[in-house]
Amino acid sequence: MVELSPVTWQAGLHWVDLLGILAFAMSGALLAVRKKFDLFGVVVLGCVTAVGGGAIRDAMTGQTPPLFLRDETYLWAALAGSLLGFGFGERLARFERTMRFFDTAGLALFAASGALGAIKIGLGPLGVIFAGTISGVGGGIVRDLIANEVPEVMYRREQLYATAAAAGAWVTLLLYSRVPLWQAQLGGALVVVLLRWMSRRGWVRLPVRRLPSERPK
Amino acid sequence: MVELSPVTWQAGLHWVDLLGILAFAMSGALLAVRKKFDLFGVVVLGCVTAVGGGAIRDAMTGQTPPLFLRDETYLWAALAGSLLGFGFGERLARFERTMRFFDTAGLALFAASGALGAIKIGLGPLGVIFAGTISGVGGGIVRDLIANEVPEVMYRREQLYATAAAAGAWVTLLLYSRVPLWQAQLGGALVVVLLRWMSRRGWVRLPVRRLPSERPK
Amino acid sequence: MVELSPVTWQAGLHWVDLLGILAFAMSGALLAVRKKFDLFGVVVLGCVTAVGGGAIRDAMTGQTPPLFLRDETYLWAALAGSLLGFGFGERLARFERTMRFFDTAGLALFAASGALGAIKIGLGPLGVIFAGTISGVGGGIVRDLIANEVPEVMYRREQLYATAAAAGAWVTLLLYSRVPLWQAQLGGALVVVLLRWMSRRGWVRLPVRRLPSERPK
Repeated sequence: MVELSPVTWQAGLHWVDLLGILAFAMSGALLAVRKKFDLFGVVVLGCVTAVGGGAIRDAMTGQTPPLFLRDETYLWAALAGSLLGFGFGERLARFERTMRFFDTAGLALFAASGALGAIKIGLGPLGVIFAGTISGVGGGIVRDLIANEVPEVMYRREQLYATAAAAGAWVTLLLYSRVPLWQAQLGGALVVVLLRWMSRRGWVRLPVRRLPSERPK
Repeated sequence: MVELSPVTWQAGLHWVDLLGILAFAMSGALLAVRKKFDLFGVVVLGCVTAVGGGAIRDAMTGQTPPLFLRDETYLWAALAGSLLGFGFGERLARFERTMRFFDTAGLALFAASGALGAIKIGLGPLGVIFAGTISGVGGGIVRDLIANEVPEVMYRREQLYATAAAAGAWVTLLLYSRVPLWQAQLGGALVVVLLRWMSRRGWVRLPVRRLPSERPK
Repeated sequence: MVELSPVTWQAGLHWVDLLGILAFAMSGALLAVRKKFDLFGVVVLGCVTAVGGGAIRDAMTGQTPPLFLRDETYLWAALAGSLLGFGFGERLARFERTMRFFDTAGLALFAASGALGAIKIGLGPLGVIFAGTISGVGGGIVRDLIANEVPEVMYRREQLYATAAAAGAWVTLLLYSRVPLWQAQLGGALVVVLLRWMSRRGWVRLPVRRLPSERPK
């Protein structure tokens, strides 16, 4: 098992966080490009999507001002991701798979870091899972609400989305006391990616409640 | 008048709060079932609806982390309400009255507890009424926004909704210095229920501003 | 240059803030009147629009309870603006220009005060611009989301809106260390108004990214 000094993994977590910011910023910017927002609208939607998950995490765990305001690199990453989305959106948007990749990456990274934040302030298991899930899906919900779309988290009925975030948060919690911090975060994030991939293949799915009128006769 | 020790009424308030959580969770879960969300989507919408009002109350009164994260019983109640809504939604959803009952119960309980939270941190009368109203209607607004419905609070033009919450918060404030705490909360909540019931009967209603073009000639 | 004692400019800032509250409350109330909300719906939408920007500013800079709850004059101003919008909406709504004026005034005042709040807690330049922008456009976004409209900030593609707020926040930051506080706020706000006016005339505009399929052949 790799041994890392506290400074090293803190720096590592920071870079992983920035990657999540970048990923969500691109996902927000790409949606904005498709909706034909102007340059600044793209930047606003990109940034709000990027920092939304972390802001919800910090608000719930009582950290003010939120991390993305205390550390300017977060907003630079959000800005960079938004501009990348604006500049290359043309080519990226053609590939739905690309958008999905960035969305999943952001979901996975924030679910794990939201869980860690909740663990640090001593929440119980349900609180950790809730904080991780909402941190993961929060940015996307804010993105979809502002773009006036039905939040993807809800109508992705055929695929695991919030469920994957919850499972990732739970795995992060399980790993937390057993392995170094960055491995707990990475492990939780990988579970999210794995579950998303499996559900896209149709290997796992969640039940949908049918009302009597919709039942096959 | 019933005399209760501080411990007893604190425990009582806790149970009343949990009932409000359960009620709102069911109302969110039932809407999610009608929208054909999957199991986890139902749980997410149920939980977010349930803790939304309290989270707004705690955010406004500066309590972090919010109560629902510090005390795990809240999330268990939200989870239970969501699962009840998923499991029995079929039978409950047929009765619009049932959904309305749970919605009103949550509205009433959160309006009163939001008012109490605002009183405790020393807000003025308008602040108490505002905090109570937003705590009451906040969960429902979040529910409707995520489900991409027009928030009921706004288009229920024929019925009192937010007005009832405001009146309940005001009555809670009036009762606060006169009766034990739990009675102030209960009294405020009952006023909300009463006003909702009266307005459904058509006994009270609010004016709607007509633009000149809509006026009967 | 006018010299003002600290007490004087603090009082001045307070009045300017109240003007912004009044302006946004009227803009929210007018939209609610057009949507045929009842009296209380108009008041709720007016108040939420009015305090939304400031609440976001305070939440991001860690001020709890938010200013509008600590100082009752804010809610009175929001209430007054909402009732003015309800009472005179008929006449005001006919003039789209009036609604735009109040919207711009609120945008300008909150962008500058959001920037100042961020400067005070020591944020970097990007953080100041972000906080100013979101404080400026936050109230309007909340207004449009609740009224179930596409947020104006995003689809105003032909006009600067959020961009104007960002520029105003940036100018406030530039002026902050050079002139008295109230002049920095006023200067930032004037830049917002100026940019909005220029963009309405078509003198400045932002690029929109076109997808290949939309390109003229």
